[in-house]
Amino acid sequence: MIQEATLKIGRDEVEDIALGAAVLGTGGGGDPFIGKLLALDAIDNHGEVDFLDLNQVDDDDFVIPSAMMGAPTVMVEKVPSGSESLSSLRQLETQIGRKADAIVPIEQGGINSQIPIAVAATLGLPLVDCDGMGRAFPELQMVTFHLDGIPATPMVISDEKGNSMVLSTCNNVWAERIARAVTVQMGGSSLIAIYPMQGSKLKASCVPNSVSLSMKIGRTIRESRRRGENAVNAVASILNGRTLFQGKVVDVMRRTVGGFARGDAKFEGLDEYLGHSLTISFQNENLVALLDGRVVASVPDLITVMDSETGIPITTEGLRYGNRVTVIGSPCSPKWRTPEGLRTVGPRYFGYDLDYVPVERIGETP
Amino acid sequence: MIQEATLKIGRDEVEDIALGAAVLGTGGGGDPFIGKLLALDAIDNHGEVDFLDLNQVDDDDFVIPSAMMGAPTVMVEKVPSGSESLSSLRQLETQIGRKADAIVPIEQGGINSQIPIAVAATLGLPLVDCDGMGRAFPELQMVTFHLDGIPATPMVISDEKGNSMVLSTCNNVWAERIARAVTVQMGGSSLIAIYPMQGSKLKASCVPNSVSLSMKIGRTIRESRRRGENAVNAVASILNGRTLFQGKVVDVMRRTVGGFARGDAKFEGLDEYLGHSLTISFQNENLVALLDGRVVASVPDLITVMDSETGIPITTEGLRYGNRVTVIGSPCSPKWRTPEGLRTVGPRYFGYDLDYVPVERIGETP
Repeated sequence: MIQEATLKIGRDEVEDIALGAAVLGTGGGGDPFIGKLLALDAIDNHGEVDFLDLNQVDDDDFVIPSAMMGAPTVMVEKVPSGSESLSSLRQLETQIGRKADAIVPIEQGGINSQIPIAVAATLGLPLVDCDGMGRAFPELQMVTFHLDGIPATPMVISDEKGNSMVLSTCNNVWAERIARAVTVQMGGSSLIAIYPMQGSKLKASCVPNSVSLSMKIGRTIRESRRRGENAVNAVASILNGRTLFQGKVVDVMRRTVGGFARGDAKFEGLDEYLGHSLTISFQNENLVALLDGRVVASVPDLITVMDSETGIPITTEGLRYGNRVTVIGSPCSPKWRTPEGLRTVGPRYFGYDLDYVPVERIGETP
Repeated sequence: MIQEATLKIGRDEVEDIALGAAVLGTGGGGDPFIGKLLALDAIDNHGEVDFLDLNQVDDDDFVIPSAMMGAPTVMVEKVPSGSESLSSLRQLETQIGRKADAIVPIEQGGINSQIPIAVAATLGLPLVDCDGMGRAFPELQMVTFHLDGIPATPMVISDEKGNSMVLSTCNNVWAERIARAVTVQMGGSSLIAIYPMQGSKLKASCVPNSVSLSMKIGRTIRESRRRGENAVNAVASILNGRTLFQGKVVDVMRRTVGGFARGDAKFEGLDEYLGHSLTISFQNENLVALLDGRVVASVPDLITVMDSETGIPITTEGLRYGNRVTVIGSPCSPKWRTPEGLRTVGPRYFGYDLDYVPVERIGETP
């Protein structure tokens, strides 16, 4: 059985996790504000959530990741009620014939750091301090679980209209393909329960401590603001990252294609970056950053756009003309830097004709 | 319990049903040859199929329609192995917790008259002499079961790659929408088990005797050919239909759009139709026939293209330049001529700005 938690996730922790996960979300993962409302509401109604370290999970515990799937652009307007994620989880439990002992986030990102907290609070289940990405990625097979051969299915997909399905696929890429088509039909977003697994598998495969990392980043931003300090450098330091650019948003092109928010954001340099320009290409998440046409960071490393003044991370759909921003690049989990990791989430998977170079090894700029 | 059958479906019956169902299939429902191979193989391996009249089904029997879903154009090249339809049926039984007592065809059409025979033979279950359309239609909610409020879900969708899903939807139009998107992802065709229901519901809602009607039409064509006679008039007589046109194929435009085979076929008149032209628009099935620009038949009535010489029905994907054909129009089941029936399958549903007029009430032509 799951061991007793010593830590709790309450209202303050939700605020910090939402803020910090938006940094790890690298532009994707949906609006942290909407996710936060769901989590806060669940905590107000059902109490705080037990927050488990990975070593408190037993090998034979049964865990289920809970998440929202879809284009963040859609999620901003098509707000989940909360009951869809419970419905997905319950149906998956029924399908497998076993109740979940704990809930796991699949990624860190605005909405998807919060959905699992809301589900855990509502069901009185603990949340495990880990995830499957250590950041956010746009597709279902882009999790460390996939690298370790853990099947995504059986998975359940539900929407707010009362549609749901239990999906079984021959591999995880087919799960992504079919679930994405269904999600598009459902209006662009859905709630999923996926990658059901034993505690032993979770411990061997996840990115550990990612929820507490989000919490630490969020707390740092909050405390920096309280002290009137700029949080960007402190956040970059936590992530072993560095500033890639400072400037203002001059153009954002976004379109919803195939169920994803795709596009490019352009920035003109300010201060020491005056006269330079940066372009970030995104597919839900920020994928490649080009400084004056030269790659300065790419997936799977983290490219985060933050408000230069407040240090608040800005999602791709939150980018507005004139925003003054600082862009930081940070190394991803080492699990993504393996050959299989790069085949799954490297720049070539996303259609960019470039080899991945770890962000810390790309020369100082400009 | 299902009563004992007195009639059997063996190899000869399969041949006749496949041929006759292609007449009722009105151009759609897939290639009868491929479906026939599946049914014959199953009968060779497992024996003949008990063929039940509707009144031999008990009210508390449990029946499941089994079908292929997708664009006929795709089905011709992406041949099902047979195991996918069994997989869908078995999963639906598991989901509901009850074994099927009998198998039901959802429509009459090339492949979908045969898939249920193959499934019934393999499982040693009887086939009921009825269907949900009395012809073929392109969408899942286009069944008399839908008119009577019987839910399409839970339904199961499977493909040959090992992907499958159990779908539950808020209504039958959503079942069509989601299942279609999934079928497109699966490569354009899938095998489904759908509209599980009690015998009492089937008896109240189906189109009765449609399998034996297919068999009668097929036998008529076969015997006419043996006697060197043209079967077209005999078939039209069985269906209370009439000849709409005689001529040759001069153009066929087809495209696979949204998982359907859509297009138009153009014919130039011969004999008494010399100087006239006919256009048939189709979405899997033939929908509207225009003689010199004037509607001479439309859905839900049956528009069947037959080889003028042999009387063999020609599917939309089988139409070839130069084919000499006779087009017949026949009245549909009266269930489709109700206001709700016409809302579901009338010409306006398919985007044609015309009111439905029963084919027998449209003036003699030309």
